Amino acid sequence: MTLTAAAVPGLPEIRAGDDLAALVAARADLRAGDVVVVAHKVVSKAEGRVVRLADVAPGDRARRLAAELGKDPAQVEVVLRESDEVVRAERGVIISRTRHGFVCANAGVDASNAAADGELVLLPEDPDASARALRAGLPGRPAVVITDSFGRAWRHGQVDVAIGIAGLAPLEDWRGRDDARGRTMRATWIAVADEAAAAADLVRAKDGGQPVVVLRGLERHVTAADGPGARELVRGRAEDLFR
Amino acid sequence: MTLTAAAVPGLPEIRAGDDLAALVAARADLRAGDVVVVAHKVVSKAEGRVVRLADVAPGDRARRLAAELGKDPAQVEVVLRESDEVVRAERGVIISRTRHGFVCANAGVDASNAAADGELVLLPEDPDASARALRAGLPGRPAVVITDSFGRAWRHGQVDVAIGIAGLAPLEDWRGRDDARGRTMRATWIAVADEAAAAADLVRAKDGGQPVVVLRGLERHVTAADGPGARELVRGRAEDLFR
Repeated sequence: MTLTAAAVPGLPEIRAGDDLAALVAARADLRAGDVVVVAHKVVSKAEGRVVRLADVAPGDRARRLAAELGKDPAQVEVVLRESDEVVRAERGVIISRTRHGFVCANAGVDASNAAADGELVLLPEDPDASARALRAGLPGRPAVVITDSFGRAWRHGQVDVAIGIAGLAPLEDWRGRDDARGRTMRATWIAVADEAAAAADLVRAKDGGQPVVVLRGLERHVTAADGPGARELVRGRAEDLFR
Repeated sequence: MTLTAAAVPGLPEIRAGDDLAALVAARADLRAGDVVVVAHKVVSKAEGRVVRLADVAPGDRARRLAAELGKDPAQVEVVLRESDEVVRAERGVIISRTRHGFVCANAGVDASNAAADGELVLLPEDPDASARALRAGLPGRPAVVITDSFGRAWRHGQVDVAIGIAGLAPLEDWRGRDDARGRTMRATWIAVADEAAAAADLVRAKDGGQPVVVLRGLERHVTAADGPGARELVRGRAEDLFR
């Protein structure tokens, strides 16, 4: 089996209300079984999930935290609104659990690649729903994975992970199956959607000009049903041994 | 840019002393700029990093921990010998920091895909050195990435990550560079080698029969020098905000 990953060329700057599915469909020869991997920023922008800093009135908690961290109070206010829980706030960085359950820097709120200065791009309100909507609008109903770049515990750097999924099995479960020599394998529970997100990131220009990548060769993980989505990838705090 | 990933077909079962580079070179049309991604188990086996459980005398600490967790004392003894620090030991799982600095389940010690029952496959003694040696033996001097499957904090499932690297930049640093519209981007420090490991895992059969995958299209990350290796990916405990 060969996997190929190629960026969709020539997408324009995305604005609120744009039909992202139509813009992608016009520039990519999509077929059933493909996996279309989309950096969340263009989804968020198309959905109008953008906040002007000038419109934000920071509350007391945001002001205190901003002073501690040396950050803009309005920006911290937006991060807090997007967070269910602040996991850590140190050295200018807020690590929080978003309303979706994702643990990441600044609740995924991002000032880069915003349409204009003074704007912040948020994560989509419901990235799994965004992925389903995008899938429904694409010819051939390829799977859709919406991604963000997350830092990790224990390791330097960020990798792209899946935050919204439609039509791709998030996890492949080999636990209890036999290996090539007939012995039961150790716990093997593969986060296929996160590996797909990472693979797609390798072909993207980091300046934000190539938000959409098509993966071909993952047909065996693509499902007719939209499936459980990226929610399935969220590990609850109580069962988390890796922190 | 298009990325392709394809497994090297027809590798035999690897045994201690096998010339892994020659076995791969005979089955893959390698060229400069390729990235050869190798599941660590075949590297460990070729290097003889295999322990017979029957040869292991568990110490007091291993016996106590094994009783607590419901595990085999000899297996726990091997895990402890491979660990610098036990991070957590609960619900039948030991999460530890290996001597290399990697945080993973059971210090990477694995009973699956061992050459015979009653044997454990360890991580290579020095996976960066293993990657360098493999690279030196491959035609065209492609980059080499040695991988293992690690669980993650906050997210379900495992993804393959780089534990040994030669000739690939482990991290790409875009921090402070400008985005497509001339604004400075947020901290963007991409773990390219981990994304390459994840991409390769997508094409591998999970029963252990396809340990080697060739990635093509990452030429811009491949370096003439072997470089700093996977050590560069290890995040020190003190600077880790993501736990």
